[in-house]
Amino acid sequence: MSAPTLSPPLNAIPADIRNAQDYAALAPHFLPPSHLAYISGGSGYGHSVAANATAFGQWAITPRLLRDVGHGHTRITLAGEAYAHPLFLAPVGFHKLAHANGELDSARAADATDTCMIASTQSTFPLEEAVAQQRWFQLYLLPRRDDTLHLLRRAEAAGYRAIVLMLDAPIQVVNRRAQAAQFQMPAGCVNVNLRGYDTTPRFAGNGPGESRFFQGAMRGAPSWDDIRWIMRETKLPVWVKGVLHPDDAVALRDAGVSGIAVSNHGGRSLDGAPSGLDVLPAVRAAVGADFPLMYDGGILSGSDAFKALALGANAVAIGRLQLYALSVAGALGVAHMLKLLREELEICMAMAGCATVGEINGGALLRQTRRDAA
Amino acid sequence: MSAPTLSPPLNAIPADIRNAQDYAALAPHFLPPSHLAYISGGSGYGHSVAANATAFGQWAITPRLLRDVGHGHTRITLAGEAYAHPLFLAPVGFHKLAHANGELDSARAADATDTCMIASTQSTFPLEEAVAQQRWFQLYLLPRRDDTLHLLRRAEAAGYRAIVLMLDAPIQVVNRRAQAAQFQMPAGCVNVNLRGYDTTPRFAGNGPGESRFFQGAMRGAPSWDDIRWIMRETKLPVWVKGVLHPDDAVALRDAGVSGIAVSNHGGRSLDGAPSGLDVLPAVRAAVGADFPLMYDGGILSGSDAFKALALGANAVAIGRLQLYALSVAGALGVAHMLKLLREELEICMAMAGCATVGEINGGALLRQTRRDAA
Amino acid sequence: MSAPTLSPPLNAIPADIRNAQDYAALAPHFLPPSHLAYISGGSGYGHSVAANATAFGQWAITPRLLRDVGHGHTRITLAGEAYAHPLFLAPVGFHKLAHANGELDSARAADATDTCMIASTQSTFPLEEAVAQQRWFQLYLLPRRDDTLHLLRRAEAAGYRAIVLMLDAPIQVVNRRAQAAQFQMPAGCVNVNLRGYDTTPRFAGNGPGESRFFQGAMRGAPSWDDIRWIMRETKLPVWVKGVLHPDDAVALRDAGVSGIAVSNHGGRSLDGAPSGLDVLPAVRAAVGADFPLMYDGGILSGSDAFKALALGANAVAIGRLQLYALSVAGALGVAHMLKLLREELEICMAMAGCATVGEINGGALLRQTRRDAA
Amino acid sequence: MSAPTLSPPLNAIPADIRNAQDYAALAPHFLPPSHLAYISGGSGYGHSVAANATAFGQWAITPRLLRDVGHGHTRITLAGEAYAHPLFLAPVGFHKLAHANGELDSARAADATDTCMIASTQSTFPLEEAVAQQRWFQLYLLPRRDDTLHLLRRAEAAGYRAIVLMLDAPIQVVNRRAQAAQFQMPAGCVNVNLRGYDTTPRFAGNGPGESRFFQGAMRGAPSWDDIRWIMRETKLPVWVKGVLHPDDAVALRDAGVSGIAVSNHGGRSLDGAPSGLDVLPAVRAAVGADFPLMYDGGILSGSDAFKALALGANAVAIGRLQLYALSVAGALGVAHMLKLLREELEICMAMAGCATVGEINGGALLRQTRRDAA
Repeated sequence: MSAPTLSPPLNAIPADIRNAQDYAALAPHFLPPSHLAYISGGSGYGHSVAANATAFGQWAITPRLLRDVGHGHTRITLAGEAYAHPLFLAPVGFHKLAHANGELDSARAADATDTCMIASTQSTFPLEEAVAQQRWFQLYLLPRRDDTLHLLRRAEAAGYRAIVLMLDAPIQVVNRRAQAAQFQMPAGCVNVNLRGYDTTPRFAGNGPGESRFFQGAMRGAPSWDDIRWIMRETKLPVWVKGVLHPDDAVALRDAGVSGIAVSNHGGRSLDGAPSGLDVLPAVRAAVGADFPLMYDGGILSGSDAFKALALGANAVAIGRLQLYALSVAGALGVAHMLKLLREELEICMAMAGCATVGEINGGALLRQTRRDAA
Repeated sequence: MSAPTLSPPLNAIPADIRNAQDYAALAPHFLPPSHLAYISGGSGYGHSVAANATAFGQWAITPRLLRDVGHGHTRITLAGEAYAHPLFLAPVGFHKLAHANGELDSARAADATDTCMIASTQSTFPLEEAVAQQRWFQLYLLPRRDDTLHLLRRAEAAGYRAIVLMLDAPIQVVNRRAQAAQFQMPAGCVNVNLRGYDTTPRFAGNGPGESRFFQGAMRGAPSWDDIRWIMRETKLPVWVKGVLHPDDAVALRDAGVSGIAVSNHGGRSLDGAPSGLDVLPAVRAAVGADFPLMYDGGILSGSDAFKALALGANAVAIGRLQLYALSVAGALGVAHMLKLLREELEICMAMAGCATVGEINGGALLRQTRRDAA
Repeated sequence: MSAPTLSPPLNAIPADIRNAQDYAALAPHFLPPSHLAYISGGSGYGHSVAANATAFGQWAITPRLLRDVGHGHTRITLAGEAYAHPLFLAPVGFHKLAHANGELDSARAADATDTCMIASTQSTFPLEEAVAQQRWFQLYLLPRRDDTLHLLRRAEAAGYRAIVLMLDAPIQVVNRRAQAAQFQMPAGCVNVNLRGYDTTPRFAGNGPGESRFFQGAMRGAPSWDDIRWIMRETKLPVWVKGVLHPDDAVALRDAGVSGIAVSNHGGRSLDGAPSGLDVLPAVRAAVGADFPLMYDGGILSGSDAFKALALGANAVAIGRLQLYALSVAGALGVAHMLKLLREELEICMAMAGCATVGEINGGALLRQTRRDAA
Repeated sequence: MSAPTLSPPLNAIPADIRNAQDYAALAPHFLPPSHLAYISGGSGYGHSVAANATAFGQWAITPRLLRDVGHGHTRITLAGEAYAHPLFLAPVGFHKLAHANGELDSARAADATDTCMIASTQSTFPLEEAVAQQRWFQLYLLPRRDDTLHLLRRAEAAGYRAIVLMLDAPIQVVNRRAQAAQFQMPAGCVNVNLRGYDTTPRFAGNGPGESRFFQGAMRGAPSWDDIRWIMRETKLPVWVKGVLHPDDAVALRDAGVSGIAVSNHGGRSLDGAPSGLDVLPAVRAAVGADFPLMYDGGILSGSDAFKALALGANAVAIGRLQLYALSVAGALGVAHMLKLLREELEICMAMAGCATVGEINGGALLRQTRRDAA
């Protein structure tokens, strides 16, 4: 299959788009193949990317009849803040790969749709510029604590309302699809937030008898001490992203984090990790009914979002689809994608008889035999 | 794959047809591609259409030996009325899409085969003209109660013997296959039954902060009050169609409806809803052994019908296959399809040792490993 | 895929054949396409043919170490008679479809390999001529009892050692593959055993309000009375073939039959019936450890045979593979196929540590995840 | 698909290799098709080869957060000896099929990567010459005990540190892929270790009424007496390879063997045997927590190795991948493959929070729905 001819991004919503995931189908017409491979691929052979897709297909949504949902809405309150709907923009790096306006456009789209954007540390526009009305900041712990602290203070100063610590990718695993497509980060795609910081890893693990993983990357990986330090240093709610084991979730809750994002990092961390969706019910059971949980990984539709909410999440975050829509039509595309996604979620809620996000629960789902496409 | 050359409908039963589902294979030669897409597609991506197909494949039918079924027959009594067999024509809209004679021919076929036809509100011939000997009327609740009542009175006057309330499609979801095929309802396909009624939805859901689903479509959706009102207004048995949850079934039974059709609307309502077949045993268990249940969704053969009867239905309704046969050979096609379907059902009954429909139960089925085609 | 050029049957064992099922791969080079379709197809859409293939794939055979099987053998005793091995030739009709020497060659192959041949009523050579050393006779009950009795007496006179009553195909269901290939029984393929008998069905089921199945075929189907009559009329052991339900097996055992063949008729009876292999353990559990059970349906290898023996059968019968081998190389082909099959069985037994057929049981099998081809 | 043009082995690590299993993808460019078929094929139809591949896909690895693994390492102690990591080179015959330097290069690669090589009896270089620093010897029992003893003494003299008895392939089953590719062992590929020994099987099983399996191969198969004799004759630890049943494992443990390799012989023994991975947990449960177990069969990645360790193995052995890497780049290829495999294992360990091999257990795995490729 030859690659499609590339189009420049549109200045209008493309005709014939009816579902949010149409943006995934359109993206190959707007993204260079190597960018597409980098964005859509996962680590290694993509086993965990595939696990996300498979996970949603295991569940059907049972419609209910005659429920009065005329007063229905999608509003949620999360860690004390109100949001118009539970669909967040996930922290995704390097938006300029998808569109010249990068994170600026994503933030505009968030505002147009009352969406909270979780800004990534790895941004091609400064965290002070690409600011959505509702914004959280995803913080990577840097090799030097003073750099981390400086970055944190900037985020606080820029009005971010929560900090999301990334714990789940201490080791970079090759994205084989990107590698096969000879992806290289373009010159213009620079992680501007980190300018002036020392990003040299503290540990190389290249001493005699050392492992570059155990004595290298993992010695520089976040620790309990780091988390407690961050929680002491900021008054903002601190979330942790990348949890896949119920015991880790309980320990983090007990350590005082404000919420947890159950996620396999979009299949971009350990290849072979399960889908977060498959562990979400166990995590919810472990942390109790009231502890805030977010889900991300593989959401392409309102029914996917509904399923994650039913299995225990309070909100969900949208990763790849965000960049796909950005590549197709910039801010307009992302806003349209979010609008469609919310409508799809509303349809599922309405037909499943759920007037509020809080009414969505496991009783709305039915585990089903694996089925083939129609 | 290029589309086949279209043939005009036949005036004879096509040679080489041996099974009812052959009409599904022949239909693409008689239906314009966009009509075929509209009829065969489901809502969204067709997940629920696929779920129906998958559901039947999970079950094998265990033959029994040496049972005396020489006195066997397919007669049933449903809510006090006698029927020659448990195969009904499901309410399907716009028969003119398949054949110029539309519902007139379907009704003739019903009569030729002792079949009860459930006429659709969305008919291209008036409910007073396209009348089968045994006829039920599927009633959509219209935006204005006096219109609904007028329609109901017409159905009563035209001799329909039961009312089937549609509850399961309060929101119209796009049929992506139809959309991709650029389907448009032809000028001649008019819902003639609704002429003169006000079909403007009562609620648009376009006020500030409103959702067009929660504050739009769902505010106009049928309510318990509507159902009780219809039951007060008519002496006919009132059935409800589109039930997929046991609790809804029990509540409807307790509210006094005469019977329930377990159905995912042929995969045309919420995309991602389970197959009705997968929930049928739980619904039967919930409503008790004696409450009338009908099943529809994906039936293409007598063995499909047998399985639905074994899993708890008292009768089944045939949707798409009806239009396929109509497109191939008009009334003759539909009658032949029904004859074949009944014979296939008789073969299953005879070989499973069931002399009557009442003897068909879950003991006749064996859940089996998913298998590939031969 | 165009059909291969046909070869006349070989007079030698083809080179490169290493496994019995190679004959299935070679058969398309020796059988006219319509004959192949008739033989390999099943009833209807082939669901039950596919079920047989799937059933074997669910099981792995666990090798055992250090078992002393140096004294091992495949000999069995079945209903008091000794057989060199548990591989029988199943009753298959119309061997001339595969080879001009028909049943004569199959019988010669049986003798060359110490195999018991279950001769079919539907034979293209007289039951008195196509006689193997070890022979059973598969008896179809004819419309008139005196004809049946005459046929039975001929079988007794011809030295058949057991009668196998066919109960499982009271209704002929179309073989769609054969139909699509426009199969017609060739002029030379005549059921010679039935010459002079009245084969007109007793009941047509074409009276007013009658079903050609309930009031037709099923009124002529074998009854308990027929079975008891046959058992009174003959001193030979009477087996019954086509059992798929444990309750039927128990009733037949209690009625005094000598053994039961668990079988879905090679997928040629009710399309949608389960594989006999899937019900075999339940049948064995129901009839007890000592009651003779045979299995047939889909066996293509010694490991298939081993699995059937492990799941409860005392012997197995080989159907389609017999005709495939016959088509390739006549008696030589069938004998070679049987030799290979026995060797494959011996390998499984030896490596699973089973010195005798009696030592093969369910402990030798492991249910496994469905796997794809290598 | 035509065969790729063959290249001579490289003298450098090929560019673009990122994962150990890339060597499997490259091997067809370096191995003649018939050699490739012989090496990659299994016995019969490859069912057991496929079972190995399927077995790993059933499991996901759950990452853990915030575990301190900065002190992590892969060192293990097995039966009293220390090894740098749990990845062994499995005993594979005839390395010259892959590279002219054969076992000499494999041994060099083992040394370069601190790997223990289990030398095969079936070697194309003498066991005294192809010696890795850490070396075990896989011993086939020869027809005559004095030959076996002589071979054992040579292995002891050559400094091998353990003896691995092969028990699991008493009968040679045809490798159909090799047969189809017309594989023949090249003249230069000679099992030099056996020169001067009598390799004629003791039993042919060709007497009257004899089976060449029961009275042939199996009479020559290893016995309990043989095992006890070997254990008496040597002070080296004696392992047994090819165990798939928990009862066999327990009996061997009780008989005093030092360890057991759970293995289906890479799918090269009984076609239809389960994957060793599927029985590994039951074997571990049966022998207890402390008894040494090795696993081999189908390992292509560090995550495969991790899964085997988590399911009960103390170490794993690498078979086919060894020859693939050897064919691509000789000693350099094998060493690079082992380096990558170890790094992949370290990544899994680090991300699953396991600082040592001993911390890897079943709690790190999650059984998952079968998923399709990304």
